[in-house]
Amino acid sequence: MRDILPADKARRERVLAIIRERYRAHGFDEIETPALEEYSRLHAGIGGDNEKLAFNVLRRGLEAEAIRAGADDPAALADLGLRYDLTVPLARYYASNRGQLPGVFRAIQIGPVWRAERPQKGRYRQFMQCDIDIMGDDSARAEAELIAASLDAIDALGLEGATVRINDRRALDWMLDTFGFAPDERAGVLITIDKLDKIGPDGVAAELRERGAAASAVDAFEAFLRRPQTLEYNPFGERQIRKGLPENAPDEIVAHLVGIGEAVAASREPAPGIDPVPLVFDPFLVRGMGYYTGTIFELAHPSVDYSLGGGGRYDGMIGRFLGQQVPAVGFSIGFERIVDLVAEQQDATANAVVLVHDADVPVVELLAHKKALIDAGARVRLERRTKNFKALLERAQGDGYTAFAAVRAGDAPGALEVKPLG
Amino acid sequence: MRDILPADKARRERVLAIIRERYRAHGFDEIETPALEEYSRLHAGIGGDNEKLAFNVLRRGLEAEAIRAGADDPAALADLGLRYDLTVPLARYYASNRGQLPGVFRAIQIGPVWRAERPQKGRYRQFMQCDIDIMGDDSARAEAELIAASLDAIDALGLEGATVRINDRRALDWMLDTFGFAPDERAGVLITIDKLDKIGPDGVAAELRERGAAASAVDAFEAFLRRPQTLEYNPFGERQIRKGLPENAPDEIVAHLVGIGEAVAASREPAPGIDPVPLVFDPFLVRGMGYYTGTIFELAHPSVDYSLGGGGRYDGMIGRFLGQQVPAVGFSIGFERIVDLVAEQQDATANAVVLVHDADVPVVELLAHKKALIDAGARVRLERRTKNFKALLERAQGDGYTAFAAVRAGDAPGALEVKPLG
Repeated sequence: MRDILPADKARRERVLAIIRERYRAHGFDEIETPALEEYSRLHAGIGGDNEKLAFNVLRRGLEAEAIRAGADDPAALADLGLRYDLTVPLARYYASNRGQLPGVFRAIQIGPVWRAERPQKGRYRQFMQCDIDIMGDDSARAEAELIAASLDAIDALGLEGATVRINDRRALDWMLDTFGFAPDERAGVLITIDKLDKIGPDGVAAELRERGAAASAVDAFEAFLRRPQTLEYNPFGERQIRKGLPENAPDEIVAHLVGIGEAVAASREPAPGIDPVPLVFDPFLVRGMGYYTGTIFELAHPSVDYSLGGGGRYDGMIGRFLGQQVPAVGFSIGFERIVDLVAEQQDATANAVVLVHDADVPVVELLAHKKALIDAGARVRLERRTKNFKALLERAQGDGYTAFAAVRAGDAPGALEVKPLG
Repeated sequence: MRDILPADKARRERVLAIIRERYRAHGFDEIETPALEEYSRLHAGIGGDNEKLAFNVLRRGLEAEAIRAGADDPAALADLGLRYDLTVPLARYYASNRGQLPGVFRAIQIGPVWRAERPQKGRYRQFMQCDIDIMGDDSARAEAELIAASLDAIDALGLEGATVRINDRRALDWMLDTFGFAPDERAGVLITIDKLDKIGPDGVAAELRERGAAASAVDAFEAFLRRPQTLEYNPFGERQIRKGLPENAPDEIVAHLVGIGEAVAASREPAPGIDPVPLVFDPFLVRGMGYYTGTIFELAHPSVDYSLGGGGRYDGMIGRFLGQQVPAVGFSIGFERIVDLVAEQQDATANAVVLVHDADVPVVELLAHKKALIDAGARVRLERRTKNFKALLERAQGDGYTAFAAVRAGDAPGALEVKPLG
């Protein structure tokens, strides 16, 4: 966990304001759930590996006897836990509040989550997540609205040129069936395929053999991975999708993906130099979470080799809480990664003035000067003059101030000479 | 704890944006601290009664043996806890990051805190706090900057007419000395005086006698409470302060309060019908927290009989963490109370359009309509037409939408007839 200093916090809030504004323009509504959820809900097997990383909150008012009993059953010591993602709480929220929400509900969630990860560079045990989700729409329109809104937000942050890698869990399942993997091998095989970018076809085939997967299936899959092909990914559409999959891929899955592409195209102006549809079919995209049931996607940007976000369909989850199936699909922006990419640019219209004053200027005069400038629309900081005047001004500039005025006792309020900094 | 629905969340974010903007104009910088703090820091005796209400986080990786040991020492079971206020974390933050902060540091903190209160109407176990603090300035200017910024934010929310009740812990101490209470009785006597509004002078005197306070001191204090006086509180200034205290109040304390009044006057345009200085001296204002060392204040508003915020000087706290005294004073706005008072007004400039479409309109057409309106600056929601068209439009209006258009298959994008709602 970490403290956030003023310049960083200002940038984070600026980025959040832009994302929020764009998501709202696309018809999403922000909601909020408590940071604490019931222990049993956080440990219901939906959260995958993150469940193990949950911070659990000590049950209150425990007597010594109950604590001793907790030695054999640690769950008895905790009744609440900090959320490790925003998806499990959203499913619970939707189930609790469905009657007060629109039939198709487009949600924005922005807030911290907590995971007890081992401390390492760039990883924090508290970090922000920034999700949009659509509940109640099983059509390709839902994916398209999520993707269009996310790309629009990324553009608005000055990070034009992002693309979305897309796949479908059903296509993966069908592909594994086609190669002859047994259904109960799927989960393990997917974990290995997920490493394709890192370990290559050789590594994947070797690891599958080590796992003890059916030899004929591994051979067939390896041959497919090594097949001669021109990686003609442009443009996104039926041809690209079919070329990425073994022959005779199910029409229904292909059509769903094609439909997303058409819908995204209708929602976006192609940027100069970018494909008309900023989608790339990636038949080996897996995404870790077990709850995905259909489309899955990841946000890629030419400036970095890691993903800037992602999401997918999880049509089964809300049913766990509601007892009635509701289709759902979500897109999570990697806020902590994106905020580092956004240029540390000053707001050009900002008028932020440091009033550098001598020690003998009466407080009432200082505050009258400050008031006059605030009334004129400025942001104003009072700063007592120090010996190193230049260092003082440089520091103010580093803090985001754009102008300064020197104040002496007796200066008339509103008549200060304000000069630009730097 | 509670879920926050879209309309409520939109209002909360609108209120926060206004408060944040006004605080920034007054030269305050926003920071953020983690929600979790070290257990030992949260239970160091600084947080007063709130320490007992802390949610404590179960230590990770505890073996059965360690849990059994925890039966005799519950603190061994928890190493972290959720913050119960923003003041203790701020003092820790300032001590940790002082080298990177300005000499006089004006902080904004906006975030949730958690207290294990018994559930009751209008009280939540997670709620937002919204604080500003100034560290490194022991002059009346600090109080004046806090008060001016807070009143400006309240005004900007449309809640003009707020006043600040002000007192000084040193004045209270001096007063109790004067009446003859022993120094070790002070804390208890203050708890009783804090109830003056509710139980009146009779109740206070009776309770002090019950507490076993020195009889002569109680008699003298009761006589003072019952003294004949004209409650001539207007205007704030030396006369008002001296009339509120026993004779011969120390010049230093009176001068500090008078100085705050003059500085606030310089920072504010008196509103029509409001005292030139929106301060009221209240010699019996106590405020609960033990860490206050000087000025204390509370925000009052004519529309409600409870306080909308408050704060005070706590010059001793940072020294606990830093080993070096740093003066500090803070003002906390009662966000949860204020958000309920702010009118549920639509943003007059908002252009939010519901596109009501027939079931047979192709997705690409719908998204092209949506895109055209978003590009023109609107917020857009797609909504499939239902039998009860009127109910659908009413619901959209309730959700903050201001206009609608009916969409049929084949309509040209950008050529929809957008009509105002309501």
